[in-house]
Amino acid sequence: MWERGLVVSAPGKVIVHGEHAVVHGKVALAVALDLRTFLRLRPGAEGRLRVCLPGVGVQRSWDTSVLRALRGRIAADFEESKSPSLEQLDALREFAGIAAEASGPDSLATLAFLYMCLAISAKYGDVPSVDILVWSELPTGAGLGSSAAYAVCLAAALLMVCGAISCPLQEGDSTARWTEEELTLINSWAFQGERVIHGNPSGVDNAVGTWGGALRYQAGKITPLKRVPTLRILLTNTKVPRSTKVLVAGVKEKILKFPAIMNPVLDSIDAISQECQSVLEEMPTNPSPEYYPVLEEFFDINQHHLNVLGVGHPSLDRLCQVTASHGLHSKLTGAGGGGCAITLLPPDTSPLAVEAAKQDLCACGFECWETKIGAPGVTLHSLSSLNTQVLHMLSQS
Amino acid sequence: MWERGLVVSAPGKVIVHGEHAVVHGKVALAVALDLRTFLRLRPGAEGRLRVCLPGVGVQRSWDTSVLRALRGRIAADFEESKSPSLEQLDALREFAGIAAEASGPDSLATLAFLYMCLAISAKYGDVPSVDILVWSELPTGAGLGSSAAYAVCLAAALLMVCGAISCPLQEGDSTARWTEEELTLINSWAFQGERVIHGNPSGVDNAVGTWGGALRYQAGKITPLKRVPTLRILLTNTKVPRSTKVLVAGVKEKILKFPAIMNPVLDSIDAISQECQSVLEEMPTNPSPEYYPVLEEFFDINQHHLNVLGVGHPSLDRLCQVTASHGLHSKLTGAGGGGCAITLLPPDTSPLAVEAAKQDLCACGFECWETKIGAPGVTLHSLSSLNTQVLHMLSQS
Repeated sequence: MWERGLVVSAPGKVIVHGEHAVVHGKVALAVALDLRTFLRLRPGAEGRLRVCLPGVGVQRSWDTSVLRALRGRIAADFEESKSPSLEQLDALREFAGIAAEASGPDSLATLAFLYMCLAISAKYGDVPSVDILVWSELPTGAGLGSSAAYAVCLAAALLMVCGAISCPLQEGDSTARWTEEELTLINSWAFQGERVIHGNPSGVDNAVGTWGGALRYQAGKITPLKRVPTLRILLTNTKVPRSTKVLVAGVKEKILKFPAIMNPVLDSIDAISQECQSVLEEMPTNPSPEYYPVLEEFFDINQHHLNVLGVGHPSLDRLCQVTASHGLHSKLTGAGGGGCAITLLPPDTSPLAVEAAKQDLCACGFECWETKIGAPGVTLHSLSSLNTQVLHMLSQS
Repeated sequence: MWERGLVVSAPGKVIVHGEHAVVHGKVALAVALDLRTFLRLRPGAEGRLRVCLPGVGVQRSWDTSVLRALRGRIAADFEESKSPSLEQLDALREFAGIAAEASGPDSLATLAFLYMCLAISAKYGDVPSVDILVWSELPTGAGLGSSAAYAVCLAAALLMVCGAISCPLQEGDSTARWTEEELTLINSWAFQGERVIHGNPSGVDNAVGTWGGALRYQAGKITPLKRVPTLRILLTNTKVPRSTKVLVAGVKEKILKFPAIMNPVLDSIDAISQECQSVLEEMPTNPSPEYYPVLEEFFDINQHHLNVLGVGHPSLDRLCQVTASHGLHSKLTGAGGGGCAITLLPPDTSPLAVEAAKQDLCACGFECWETKIGAPGVTLHSLSSLNTQVLHMLSQS
């Protein structure tokens, strides 16, 4: 079926509550963001494997026979449960002409592609001659899980063309999803791709990209939430650059300096995550407008807590003020110190208020998307089911 | 000695940390504010007791013999350890021509004056013919302990003229204070005055007015801090009116609604008060500029916590933003929801920054005083030691 061209998509992610606290053993809630990465899969020239990533300026192709030979040299232990070895990555870098110190998204995306291709084909059989193009609605490097969405799409596509998982799309279907077992396999291979890109990822981003909806993360344990509503939000990127490493270290230092003051703040954030989980799980079975003010209150409280942890920023204060002036509630999401924030749009929000808020946010120099959280996970699409913008972007090679 | 005219002064108070949390059994730190209430005492016309409170529009005088007769009728149990009885207060209202429902500062100040006069003279002997004038640098009803400063001045003056405590000012002294034992007596009578005015006061305000410096308050127990530094601050009144009762009820409601989220915030505030106490007690023996950034960090964290408790206000956000733009750190003090805030002025603050901050705060419509905390408690002054503004205000009757 895929021979006629198919598209795989996976969502980005945002942390709703628990960023930073999660580093100290507390609960975090991550949700799928309906800004998606799309991977177009179509038959390629015989004996060629081609990958085109216009967003990061990558356009490469290789002879499948050459890849097979390379795999033979480095395939000793390709296993989805093992981390990519330094030797394997060095060999792939050398093969692709990527410098040892190169860490740009183009280099990492190429490396992840090659690694996943070889490892998956070593286990499940050759990757046929295909042409892969990836385009994303997600900005890269903004903490929105763009690399995981890429790795999830890649894992699903490669596993499907190798026959390790089915092609669930039936004639006439516009979209389809895989079985739970297949999703587990997609997720574990996407995690390998994330490891190539990030070294030591938590696994949260690829799990959200795979299962969608929302999940709870605590002390290395990932638990998908049973049912979650789809909630409208504004996602705003302040475009203020930040270093997650520096911010995480700053929080740790504050906790060590004033443990009696800071530890209760982590406890309060933990309670917010847990209460928010309950609210999200109740919403689908018992729809009521009364949940929204509660979710908004949690946003406000956690935004104050994150300021206490020292990961706020004047740009985020400004953002919260702007949205508050339109009756909307916001909090930073992810590392903070700039970066992105989410603003809840309850169902009764007037379209005029949303438009005005977006305009004011753009006037601050921020980038703003009206989107949803609780989006579906990795999905297979027929070409005809995609909207024209996505189709246009996927026809650029 | 007082026959030639003396002045008693007492400071106002601000809460440095622990407002609202104190209602839930946590520690609060209250400090003496160097905005003072002054009471001028001088011999009056024979057989007349005269009181003049220009700030609240009171100017009354009574025959001492009439007061003695009134005392005889209602004096059954004037005791500093007992609360003023409803019957006594009704009799005083009737005597002074104050309506039962009158609760303006003029009525309450007159009532407190009469109560303290009669109760103190019942216990220690007649109040002689004196002329009392009270003027204050403190705004009334702003949560700055103006009623307590009034009650402390009145207790000290009345106890002194009745001979219950000494007149500690020696010829040539500019100021003098009372012994610890005498201060305890002044404080207990000032507390009675506060009871007349407030019904059920905590006793913190009169304790600060009496002892000055700083004190710790928790679950009804008041403990003066050993040594505290005098710290420069800006005190700013947003002039946004608020109801303490409504704000306290709102906090309670939030705690009941989200105990797991809110109780840790109270714990964190409690820890801030205790850490701040340690810092304040260390500062006089080990002066170092390094304490100031810590005190500023405590201000910032607690301001966020008070916002979480729901007692912030846009005017207070604005105030914090304005002072932050001059590198200064602020927090609300007292009930919040508007009202007053304090801004720390570390010793290295440039006078230009202070001036600029004051101007910007005034431009917001706020009232702003450059003053000190950790001020001395109730003090006796010779007239010649007072500055001209105070002397001028005290010569207006």
